[in-house]
Amino acid sequence: MKTIPILELIHEELERVERKMREASRIEYEQMRAILDYLLSGRGKRLRPALVLLSSKFYPTDAEKVTCLAAAVETLHTATLVHDDLIDNALLRRGNPTLNALWNSAATVLTGDYLFAQAAAFAAETESVRVISIFAQTLMTICSGELNQIFGSDGRQPTREHYYQRIYSKTASLFAASAEAGSLLGEASQAEAQALRDYGHNLGMAFQIVDDILDFAGDEGDLGKPVGSDLRQGIITLPAICFLEAHPEDGTVARVLRGRGDGDDEVRAAVEAIKESGAIESSTAEAKRFVSRSRDALSILPHNDYRQAMLDLADFVVERQK
Amino acid sequence: MKTIPILELIHEELERVERKMREASRIEYEQMRAILDYLLSGRGKRLRPALVLLSSKFYPTDAEKVTCLAAAVETLHTATLVHDDLIDNALLRRGNPTLNALWNSAATVLTGDYLFAQAAAFAAETESVRVISIFAQTLMTICSGELNQIFGSDGRQPTREHYYQRIYSKTASLFAASAEAGSLLGEASQAEAQALRDYGHNLGMAFQIVDDILDFAGDEGDLGKPVGSDLRQGIITLPAICFLEAHPEDGTVARVLRGRGDGDDEVRAAVEAIKESGAIESSTAEAKRFVSRSRDALSILPHNDYRQAMLDLADFVVERQK
Repeated sequence: MKTIPILELIHEELERVERKMREASRIEYEQMRAILDYLLSGRGKRLRPALVLLSSKFYPTDAEKVTCLAAAVETLHTATLVHDDLIDNALLRRGNPTLNALWNSAATVLTGDYLFAQAAAFAAETESVRVISIFAQTLMTICSGELNQIFGSDGRQPTREHYYQRIYSKTASLFAASAEAGSLLGEASQAEAQALRDYGHNLGMAFQIVDDILDFAGDEGDLGKPVGSDLRQGIITLPAICFLEAHPEDGTVARVLRGRGDGDDEVRAAVEAIKESGAIESSTAEAKRFVSRSRDALSILPHNDYRQAMLDLADFVVERQK
Repeated sequence: MKTIPILELIHEELERVERKMREASRIEYEQMRAILDYLLSGRGKRLRPALVLLSSKFYPTDAEKVTCLAAAVETLHTATLVHDDLIDNALLRRGNPTLNALWNSAATVLTGDYLFAQAAAFAAETESVRVISIFAQTLMTICSGELNQIFGSDGRQPTREHYYQRIYSKTASLFAASAEAGSLLGEASQAEAQALRDYGHNLGMAFQIVDDILDFAGDEGDLGKPVGSDLRQGIITLPAICFLEAHPEDGTVARVLRGRGDGDDEVRAAVEAIKESGAIESSTAEAKRFVSRSRDALSILPHNDYRQAMLDLADFVVERQK
């Protein structure tokens, strides 16, 4: 497994999490085993398990339970990706074919469900009712956020506030839960658990904003998917919101977002208009504000290598190119 | 809410479960609220919550936690039905349009996920790690059973053993978990919890066999779906297995099961052939054997009204016409 350099400190623990996650693919049927191996093989950044591990390091904890929790959050994350790709009809994820591109939708729905179940089983292995509750509540937040995208739209242009609600549900809620629950497996005080939750929350917000920026400004090869994917799907993200705030009269971006564009050329024109408008820079500044809040949240924690890694991770989140 | 007469004894508790389940539909978006109300409104038989409630009645328990567990198992059951109907492309369930018939598949996948999350949250409210673990393991059993149907087929005719494995995963596992977990919320001994698990397991097996029989021998109006649905979908159930064991040379049933039938007339001919062969009677005898085992399992429990209701419920399961 390749981890980002900042996570070298917890390399061994992350390896244990990988092994734990592979338990999910100990299943009778060979084809299914291959699929689960494919989904669970370490191609993600493993940021969520890293948050669990780092947050647990401030306190005496049972290493096995921490491993279970880290495996639970990453397996849950993988389950949501499997269903998201099906819903979005996405054919590529991190440069690899999605499950729905390889199999039919029945297999994709059930594989996602199986991973949800496995995630719940891993969470139960922590034997902490509080951690399990946070876990279940977070899954509800993620799902209701996605339902909001389908049912909550009233036809009006989404505001920043809508956008922030959406990325909290989609990403920051699980970052927050990972950091908080990691600390709760030890003997974190209420204030420390809250501080780590705040760290995870703000880090997750920054992470998703940067993801949304990279969808405009990233390299297609690095991203493993075409630039402007969100726009093509009519999903409005912070760069487009910043652009539309500054150029309310613009027609191209709005047309593409409503699915009324003339195809690829118009999407490219909209992407270029947004990139040239300064919207990327405004969005990056916003991501940096969240990163700065996430760093500030750590101030009450003891200074040690783990806290330093969390600070470095916050910087990595806005500096990354993919 | 209408319950079957045997469940009058726990009518009030079942009402509380209904109210608890409605918490799941306390969601911001009106359209979504309507969907959840539709899915969760008491149209099912509520057998799984009844098993939780009855099993808990032998011991001193916290009524609120028992309500949470009962709501958890029924919400989980509803979640699996939502995804099953999508996978099977079923348009009717209990005579009403399915969610996928009313909405698109994205909304259906996410609604199922949301119900899984709500079920996990209800289970977490029991604050019993053991109950939560049983719950998560059961969800894994259900999902891996469904995956088996997709990936486990090696092209050969399924045997009785395959069939029993499949209906255990699909139905009996949650019946078993409901009865066991209900008892564990109180102070059931290991032997009593096991006895109730065995009761639920055998009852669930009988229930599913009868369901599969009704798919051939039931009344379309009562069932709310066309006769022979399983056969049409190539799903082999006990009546077809009994028939093929007795008539290995028959071509019609095998052809329909392989999806190579000539359409509706051939399905009807296959259904008639199975009904006239004595396969329904053999299957009913098998269901009765499971019911008898489920009744026997209760012998170690104290004689009281709840035990009597469980015995009556076992008889109801084989006598029901829908």
